[in-house]
Amino acid sequence: MVYGALDIGGTKIAGALVDDEGRLLVRTERATPARRPAEELMGAVSGVLDELASHLAWEALSCLGIASAGPVDTAAGTVSPVNIPAWRRFPLVERVRAHPRTPVGLRPVLVGDAVAMTAAEHWLGAARGVDNALCMVVSTGVGGGLVLNGRLHPGRSGNAGHIGHITVDLDGPVCACGAPGCVEGLASGTAIAAHALAAGWTAPPGATPDAAAVAAAARNGDVRARAAYERAAQALAAAIAATTALVELDLVVIGGGVAQAGDTLFTPLRRRMADYAVLDFTRDVPIVPARLALDAGLIGAAAAASAGLGHPAAHVAAAPRP
Amino acid sequence: MVYGALDIGGTKIAGALVDDEGRLLVRTERATPARRPAEELMGAVSGVLDELASHLAWEALSCLGIASAGPVDTAAGTVSPVNIPAWRRFPLVERVRAHPRTPVGLRPVLVGDAVAMTAAEHWLGAARGVDNALCMVVSTGVGGGLVLNGRLHPGRSGNAGHIGHITVDLDGPVCACGAPGCVEGLASGTAIAAHALAAGWTAPPGATPDAAAVAAAARNGDVRARAAYERAAQALAAAIAATTALVELDLVVIGGGVAQAGDTLFTPLRRRMADYAVLDFTRDVPIVPARLALDAGLIGAAAAASAGLGHPAAHVAAAPRP
Repeated sequence: MVYGALDIGGTKIAGALVDDEGRLLVRTERATPARRPAEELMGAVSGVLDELASHLAWEALSCLGIASAGPVDTAAGTVSPVNIPAWRRFPLVERVRAHPRTPVGLRPVLVGDAVAMTAAEHWLGAARGVDNALCMVVSTGVGGGLVLNGRLHPGRSGNAGHIGHITVDLDGPVCACGAPGCVEGLASGTAIAAHALAAGWTAPPGATPDAAAVAAAARNGDVRARAAYERAAQALAAAIAATTALVELDLVVIGGGVAQAGDTLFTPLRRRMADYAVLDFTRDVPIVPARLALDAGLIGAAAAASAGLGHPAAHVAAAPRP
Repeated sequence: MVYGALDIGGTKIAGALVDDEGRLLVRTERATPARRPAEELMGAVSGVLDELASHLAWEALSCLGIASAGPVDTAAGTVSPVNIPAWRRFPLVERVRAHPRTPVGLRPVLVGDAVAMTAAEHWLGAARGVDNALCMVVSTGVGGGLVLNGRLHPGRSGNAGHIGHITVDLDGPVCACGAPGCVEGLASGTAIAAHALAAGWTAPPGATPDAAAVAAAARNGDVRARAAYERAAQALAAAIAATTALVELDLVVIGGGVAQAGDTLFTPLRRRMADYAVLDFTRDVPIVPARLALDAGLIGAAAAASAGLGHPAAHVAAAPRP
């Protein structure tokens, strides 16, 4: 059984053929022509598909998953990636289905990138075997996805687990999304760097003043850098505790560039969790780093698509019975 | 098919026999001896069971649901109602199972009271036919429950949907639960009355200074009373928007005493939702009043218990397939 996978991001468009143990048999990518017209973007996707289809394993293709930067609308089969302006409600599922090399009758499965990462961590990573998990990407932005009752919970439009845009500061500053006090505005890599810079921290000569540089400064004892991670940890703790109270979690997985800070993030985060997760059933939920980094989008796209085949490692929440 | 139901609250212990269309065939209740020893409380439950068992319909009993004031632990079968101090991790499921009149082999199903209310609204009330719903009780406290993918989502320990104790004000005052800035501390009836009183509002002579009195004053144009409902609406809006972003909702149902304020609550709530629910997939989720008031606990207990029989109106999220 071979699963096809596409991963559409603001910087690259990747494709792979994945076997039923999650191994990448073929992998290819090209740069995303992010500022180009919609059809040129689609041309890059077609090129990736053509290359995948040139491999013998394509003949055994049983499903095709597409992970995309969000927002997505999986019900409509459209994508509107923030960083790809020419695609607004672009009918990516239909276009991939109609590609000449796509097998007749095969219906591509679309998921958001954070939901794909969640599917990947549940299939082969840190959330393997876990029934109720929140998987997060803390990076330039903050995203997430949920596994509930042993199955991926993408939500009706594929955007469930959208933890970056829940309000944890009722009267806080308005986020780019338009709502006050979102997690992303407090805990993204962008927010961490901005917080440290506002407190007077500066990056070493020649270094980019980003969250990684703030983490390095925090490890060297810089108080302003530490305060920036402390504030991010507080916001993440409140949001994770809220998610636990709402759906009951067994595990939280955190990946993305900011999670690379390791203990600089995880130590204050675990301490802050004790402030916000105080109920019997929310207390002491383990928080661990993600295991799959590079190809989580491709592996997760394959996992989500294979769920439709009844693949045991990648259950997507079933539609209600009639 | 007859479903048995118990509803354990701080003021009354109710019991009923319910038919498969949700009609109460028999209903009984007694006052909760809330401050008495554990066995005297259990004696009241046994009395209710004995009375139900004296009816002919008991012979057709197919399941038995128990709704209880929380916290509950449905995995352990225990209850620890805040307002019933003698019951801490009290093994209510085992004790009801062992009652002499309980049919051999019948395993009672325990749910928290807000989850029961959710099951009832999903079966027969405002959330009927809805696949993804949040049902809330806004009263002395704030509670809730979730329907996801067409099924009740009680969570591993039966406490999912616990929206009263999610943080919406990161650095806010510490709630009775121990966490900062919980919804309950801003939006419960208690909080609404306290907010109005702190602003200088006083109840009319002879009236109790509660949320209902504040609502009456708000309807008469009292600015302090209106501000108290506005603040509650803001906190509820942030929490409902967060829940929508996390799981994707099709409908929100609000019951409980504070919801009786009607437009005094719902008008500012719907306005505030526009501030906090700004994403394509969170915007414009309808918010409606609950339909079942008095016996939602009993009907919901019956619905949750009947789900184990495959009752079509009361799916509980299935355990993951092996």
